[in-house]
Amino acid sequence: MRITLKEIASLVSGELKGQEDYLIEGVAGLESASAKDITYLGHVKYEDLLVSNKAGCVFLPAGFKSDAVRNAIYVSNPQWAFVRILRIFAKERQPKMPWGPHSTAVIHPTAKLGKNVHVGAGCVIDEGAEVGDLTVLYPQCYVGRYAKIGKNCLLYPQVVVREDCEIGEGVIVHSGTVIGSDGYGYVLIEGVHEKIPQIGKVVVEEDVEIGANVTIDRATLGETRIGRGTKIDNLVQIAHNVKIGKHCLIISQVGIAGSSQVGDYATLAGQAGIPDHIKIGNKAIVIAQSGVMADVPDGAVVFGSPARPHREAMKLQALFNKLPEIYETVKKWKNENAKV
Amino acid sequence: MRITLKEIASLVSGELKGQEDYLIEGVAGLESASAKDITYLGHVKYEDLLVSNKAGCVFLPAGFKSDAVRNAIYVSNPQWAFVRILRIFAKERQPKMPWGPHSTAVIHPTAKLGKNVHVGAGCVIDEGAEVGDLTVLYPQCYVGRYAKIGKNCLLYPQVVVREDCEIGEGVIVHSGTVIGSDGYGYVLIEGVHEKIPQIGKVVVEEDVEIGANVTIDRATLGETRIGRGTKIDNLVQIAHNVKIGKHCLIISQVGIAGSSQVGDYATLAGQAGIPDHIKIGNKAIVIAQSGVMADVPDGAVVFGSPARPHREAMKLQALFNKLPEIYETVKKWKNENAKV
Amino acid sequence: MRITLKEIASLVSGELKGQEDYLIEGVAGLESASAKDITYLGHVKYEDLLVSNKAGCVFLPAGFKSDAVRNAIYVSNPQWAFVRILRIFAKERQPKMPWGPHSTAVIHPTAKLGKNVHVGAGCVIDEGAEVGDLTVLYPQCYVGRYAKIGKNCLLYPQVVVREDCEIGEGVIVHSGTVIGSDGYGYVLIEGVHEKIPQIGKVVVEEDVEIGANVTIDRATLGETRIGRGTKIDNLVQIAHNVKIGKHCLIISQVGIAGSSQVGDYATLAGQAGIPDHIKIGNKAIVIAQSGVMADVPDGAVVFGSPARPHREAMKLQALFNKLPEIYETVKKWKNENAKV
Repeated sequence: MRITLKEIASLVSGELKGQEDYLIEGVAGLESASAKDITYLGHVKYEDLLVSNKAGCVFLPAGFKSDAVRNAIYVSNPQWAFVRILRIFAKERQPKMPWGPHSTAVIHPTAKLGKNVHVGAGCVIDEGAEVGDLTVLYPQCYVGRYAKIGKNCLLYPQVVVREDCEIGEGVIVHSGTVIGSDGYGYVLIEGVHEKIPQIGKVVVEEDVEIGANVTIDRATLGETRIGRGTKIDNLVQIAHNVKIGKHCLIISQVGIAGSSQVGDYATLAGQAGIPDHIKIGNKAIVIAQSGVMADVPDGAVVFGSPARPHREAMKLQALFNKLPEIYETVKKWKNENAKV
Repeated sequence: MRITLKEIASLVSGELKGQEDYLIEGVAGLESASAKDITYLGHVKYEDLLVSNKAGCVFLPAGFKSDAVRNAIYVSNPQWAFVRILRIFAKERQPKMPWGPHSTAVIHPTAKLGKNVHVGAGCVIDEGAEVGDLTVLYPQCYVGRYAKIGKNCLLYPQVVVREDCEIGEGVIVHSGTVIGSDGYGYVLIEGVHEKIPQIGKVVVEEDVEIGANVTIDRATLGETRIGRGTKIDNLVQIAHNVKIGKHCLIISQVGIAGSSQVGDYATLAGQAGIPDHIKIGNKAIVIAQSGVMADVPDGAVVFGSPARPHREAMKLQALFNKLPEIYETVKKWKNENAKV
Repeated sequence: MRITLKEIASLVSGELKGQEDYLIEGVAGLESASAKDITYLGHVKYEDLLVSNKAGCVFLPAGFKSDAVRNAIYVSNPQWAFVRILRIFAKERQPKMPWGPHSTAVIHPTAKLGKNVHVGAGCVIDEGAEVGDLTVLYPQCYVGRYAKIGKNCLLYPQVVVREDCEIGEGVIVHSGTVIGSDGYGYVLIEGVHEKIPQIGKVVVEEDVEIGANVTIDRATLGETRIGRGTKIDNLVQIAHNVKIGKHCLIISQVGIAGSSQVGDYATLAGQAGIPDHIKIGNKAIVIAQSGVMADVPDGAVVFGSPARPHREAMKLQALFNKLPEIYETVKKWKNENAKV
């Protein structure tokens, strides 16, 4: 694919300073971009990287001046401009998936497929399941009984969607992810952990993306829900009856225990743990590896295991580093006192 | 399905206070139950939730009085009574799985299937493997050479049981779980991590339940063993040669390193880590995110990373919060002392 | 299989003290070895275990004397000698995999298979993918468009290798692992996390082993790389654009965030977390559950969350245990001071 700088500038509503008919054939990072690539300056603080750049064109923040670039397109958000062009190149690379089920896919006669659905080799779509228009199921996926997958979804190879679960429009699910496994619920009766049947479901709202090898358990009764636009990284655990709000970021290896609630635009960073029946507020941030032990208010930032407000936690960490000095002083005082 | 309160009371040996021929058509939580549902009061402390309840019937603890319920059935353990009725409704929802292998399943001629075994589409059962009576393999499972799956087991889609592993009766395994992957064992020889072959197996005793995307490694020699009735949550790692006792609870994202042993009725809470060659006693509790560094005695409760006895850990956390006061005082004393 | 002690001694260049024609039929640990097994003394400190041993032969460190063994073979590294014999027994147990694709495998006409490739039942090999000579794909694996798998690789059931990814010679990948899932990259535009296409790839160099249910994300642009001889345990997360050096040990449940770099011969122990854009030096060790927050120099050992140099962290932990004493003293001083 080839595209002129004039076209690119027009696509991103940017101001081109350079050669209008210059041809761009690829996208790359600032340090590896060649004369055929377009790239971007992510932040003014990386300005030094421009000096040795060889890119065909660089997206620069409006008002920023540089003599080091071959061609520049000025935009308000260079990263976003770059992503929009990257999407064009990415789209071109995508395979043209043939519509209809592969001959080796096993589709129950009662299942309903929309228009232009791709069902890859070895997929299994069970009784009464529905798959919306233009959705792509890569090979070896499983869609359980009466599960509903919306339009324009993308399920990579070996995704499992168990019975009754609902996936909204435009959802992306990566390989190895399991949606709708049984919640972890038992009641101890005469020394035996008796299983509590898990007959609820999982509802994933539109525009959610779920990474690889994630587990999202179905509710005991009712539903586990992932809000619109939320993005879940790899190897995350979401237990039964959890409700996650809209546009959250749930980073890799986070675990959220049963019935907890996460507000909108919250961020749970890597390996953080949320116990059961906790509320995480809107726009709250739980820093990596933190172990939350109580509700986190809207907008709060918490850190540590147990988690404390971030500023307090950082102060305590600084004082923790002073324990040698503290102990030294305490010993001295004890000694002097003993002498007296 | 419809069932009268009289029948329900009889099934759970409860005392009905209400209309004997009242029809129940479903199960629900206390807050969402409708007039057609039965529900339960989990604990007396939730009594306030009864006020606005609309349930057709509520299981109540014997001796508890309430005017807020339409009908009540008194039992010694309302949750357990509820679970027993929930099981009846859950069973009714289960699909009638056809016996015998699906036409797309690949079953080695030497494999032995018991009576009334369901083998879903795309399953692969390898040489010499055995599957017991009434066991259900959902689609796309893999059963390795000479592996043995007991009677009445339930393997959800895309479970892997590697060669030689043994699964006891009544075991449930959720999607994406791998039983019998190689243990992580190497010996460093001239700068290269030389692989130690892992030729042992995994033995899962009866009535174990294993969540989604769990990994249980085969032993180097001998066996990795999961004791009867133990329940393992999603994304748990169990390394080679680990022995887990009976009726344990191993919560999501726990990791147990090589050759460690866990007693009976132990609880390892979410994201806890157990290093290699450690013994966790019977009925011991390792609190979430703890990092155990030494054996944990029977009945002990430990917390923290490194883990300490729970009371001690809590006291230290409280004193940790006092570090600002401590440091303030220490500084003051140093200043005063300096003046002198 | 039967092998004489004379043959074994010759294979490991050891010195036999015992019966040359004694027949060994198996391998076992020191405590469980029978008269037909060979075993080894891992370390002199386990000498006591020799007393009750019943093994047919024990590998002993050169110069070590024991009257408790039936037969002994003296070598410089008993574990390594044992592993070499173990490999012979392990090899004999391996199935003879038939060459060529199983009839149920789905192989795109443009895919290129080397000589003597085994493709198990239900595998899917997509457009333009390549698989090298003697590589074994167990059932139900997926190899994406233009992915390249080298010679002599071993992919256990249900491995996913996404498009364009490259796997070097002699690589072993365990079940449920996903190589090449999209990196977790978004840019927040008007309240929406807009996806950044991930069009890079993953390169796994030769002799790497990757455990079960691991996730390795493809780069946004360019590549995520795993260096030669590195061994990755189960449930590890490796984010986009990460570079891992040669011969590293990455233990179970470790998470490495985007663009971080790990040197050669580094060890990241269980559940450790590495944030984005961090450098871990050659031969550095990150102890279990640590949360790294800054670059780790070559050879450094760090511990804690946040991670500190190990000696410092251990000292601080020791002083942390003294907080009750410290606080007691501080209170006393405050009281006395108040009186004055």
